[in-house]
Amino acid sequence: MPGIRHITLPAGFSASGVACGIKSSGKKDLAIITADRNVAAAIVTTTNQVVGAPVIWDRQILPKGSGKVRAVVINSGNSNVCTGKAGLKDAEAMATQTARLLDTDPQKVLVASTGIIGKRLEMSKIREGISAAADSLSKRRDSDALQAIMTTDLKEKSAVVQTRIGGKTVTVAGIAKGSGMIAPSMATMISVITTDLAICPRTLHKALKEAVGESFNAITVDSDTSTSDTLVLLASGAADNKKFPPASPQYRKFLAALKEVCHELARAIIADGEGATKVIKVNVSGAKSAGDAEIAAKSVANSPLFKCAIHGCDPNWGRIVVALGKSSAKIDPEKLRVKIGPATVFSAGRGRDGKFDEKKLSKYLAGDSVEVSCSLGLGKARYSALTCDLSREYITINADYHT
Amino acid sequence: MPGIRHITLPAGFSASGVACGIKSSGKKDLAIITADRNVAAAIVTTTNQVVGAPVIWDRQILPKGSGKVRAVVINSGNSNVCTGKAGLKDAEAMATQTARLLDTDPQKVLVASTGIIGKRLEMSKIREGISAAADSLSKRRDSDALQAIMTTDLKEKSAVVQTRIGGKTVTVAGIAKGSGMIAPSMATMISVITTDLAICPRTLHKALKEAVGESFNAITVDSDTSTSDTLVLLASGAADNKKFPPASPQYRKFLAALKEVCHELARAIIADGEGATKVIKVNVSGAKSAGDAEIAAKSVANSPLFKCAIHGCDPNWGRIVVALGKSSAKIDPEKLRVKIGPATVFSAGRGRDGKFDEKKLSKYLAGDSVEVSCSLGLGKARYSALTCDLSREYITINADYHT
Repeated sequence: MPGIRHITLPAGFSASGVACGIKSSGKKDLAIITADRNVAAAIVTTTNQVVGAPVIWDRQILPKGSGKVRAVVINSGNSNVCTGKAGLKDAEAMATQTARLLDTDPQKVLVASTGIIGKRLEMSKIREGISAAADSLSKRRDSDALQAIMTTDLKEKSAVVQTRIGGKTVTVAGIAKGSGMIAPSMATMISVITTDLAICPRTLHKALKEAVGESFNAITVDSDTSTSDTLVLLASGAADNKKFPPASPQYRKFLAALKEVCHELARAIIADGEGATKVIKVNVSGAKSAGDAEIAAKSVANSPLFKCAIHGCDPNWGRIVVALGKSSAKIDPEKLRVKIGPATVFSAGRGRDGKFDEKKLSKYLAGDSVEVSCSLGLGKARYSALTCDLSREYITINADYHT
Repeated sequence: MPGIRHITLPAGFSASGVACGIKSSGKKDLAIITADRNVAAAIVTTTNQVVGAPVIWDRQILPKGSGKVRAVVINSGNSNVCTGKAGLKDAEAMATQTARLLDTDPQKVLVASTGIIGKRLEMSKIREGISAAADSLSKRRDSDALQAIMTTDLKEKSAVVQTRIGGKTVTVAGIAKGSGMIAPSMATMISVITTDLAICPRTLHKALKEAVGESFNAITVDSDTSTSDTLVLLASGAADNKKFPPASPQYRKFLAALKEVCHELARAIIADGEGATKVIKVNVSGAKSAGDAEIAAKSVANSPLFKCAIHGCDPNWGRIVVALGKSSAKIDPEKLRVKIGPATVFSAGRGRDGKFDEKKLSKYLAGDSVEVSCSLGLGKARYSALTCDLSREYITINADYHT
């Protein structure tokens, strides 16, 4: 079924997604995204000490995080994590079969899996799926690929940005999946970004690491970092621009476009966070150091009490101040200023209840997007974290889900 | 109304609790616990950088955490936090009035407050409450005092332990309140422990710090550390034992009794955690260092996904392994062994699904007490953390509660 295009919009890529029976629902569960030839690739993976077999495989073929790659094969419904040596052989078999069908080397095929932990993949189904997906590769099946990587996601997440670099139009496009177990610490659950830019693999990797720091690494649904986080960036070179070094104006333009795609995908993950009804942006400024700014913002973004208060549309600045104060980031309540949306709710060590328009603030909090800004007054560092509210629905999803 | 005795069981103490109108429910909200004369006292308070006015007051009068004290005056319903200089004056006024009525110095009266953040205390009500509480001090009103310190608590939390020290019977008894915003990092929300032991203040403080490390500091309901955590230990000396130095057998006996009281109170707080239906003990052993053991245990105990799984009676070892792996504590999946209750569910890098009695485990998980044991296989350090499950009720309590 043809649908909207995104990851095949940059020239030089094809994609497909099929249902091969890994998901009991019968929904699509196997995707291939491939370049027309081996292209520049960069990857970042989870910092969890327990990693899935696909992550081990990807690190083996791209030990420095960049190199030349032809394709990514992805299944959903089973993450192939904690499956021992047999699981690693399964990941390798996925790469080998895909490589054979695309007429390349297994070392040129990245693998990603997402879903339940601890079960062996049903390889007969996977083999049929890879075969069918390779047969249906096309420039019009982007949505199939995107649907095939989803698990508890309710919404499809994609982003496209175009820019001019060296006189050529360059397109950057991405897809992502992720909804729970989201506190990425290198990348999100699974995301593939394509571009037609001509760029060397090392520079591509540098840009990816820069873009991830303030997008995927700045989001949290539930503070739980997955074992399977994988973000792949492929650059086909089809835009035919002249290659450029890092720190050049062209690099900065590409980085800006890449950041925009990463931000959009990261925000989409939060908006689709398990049980989420609101996206919450927590800005910290005036921190003593960059590390302090990040720690303070994430301490608020991960506070269950804060997230419940926002769910209940309650301007409970006390919980924000508590979350800042419990963190290891330096805080001085006398210098702290907290805003919820348009209203300054805390300053000079005290709440400002009665001094702001409560009706206006209530209306603001009833919306689906809330911004909290904490000015620490101690320095110049800043950081923004994205999170969602904590609802009964999160519990329902995660208590009623059974292994 | 007379009730069961606990904190006045050690000789030399009286207590009372009254309703003075701080709580809109009309329930008791002001307590005094007093010794017959100035006695040895030790205190530990929150590590949150934002602290309530009562904590500031208590630190002023016991700058080293120990000294001589007559009484503690406590109100619930309003925590007197983020109330500026005026709030500090209110705390001082509570101590001054209580001291006058007990015929001692304000510097001998500790103050604690718990409840809403950011509102000034209604001091006319507090003054009437202190007056009424001082008038009704008795050896039979322990339950009144306990009820008067409760906020969202559903259950009364008290503990009594007796031991023989130097040929004398020594009693250690405590009360505590706390249910949400529980991740103590020095002490719990509010707890008062009394003993008739004769002991010097510095030794008392040493024992308190030792006991807190593996009891109150090892519990978490929601990872949010309060601004008001205060634990006071008063020793009347009425048991008339010979004083002893730290590291003596007598010290160790007292410490054991004190730890038992702290453990019982800490466990009671978890059992009454907001929305809790189960108490979960997370044991980590075989860690490389004591720090690693604590970090690993708390990473599991604070994982929302793990807490939801236990709420749903799901033996989801994947979420335990994920929570261990995301922490900064050193983990090697190949050496890791995870037990849920009686069943080994993970070893040698793999789940053991199908290799344990699932029916038996389901029955175990349906109970109100669950133990998870993680053997890291990397060293000898161990730590146990206590937490509760995460339920829809937690969200209801914390999203529908309005400031």
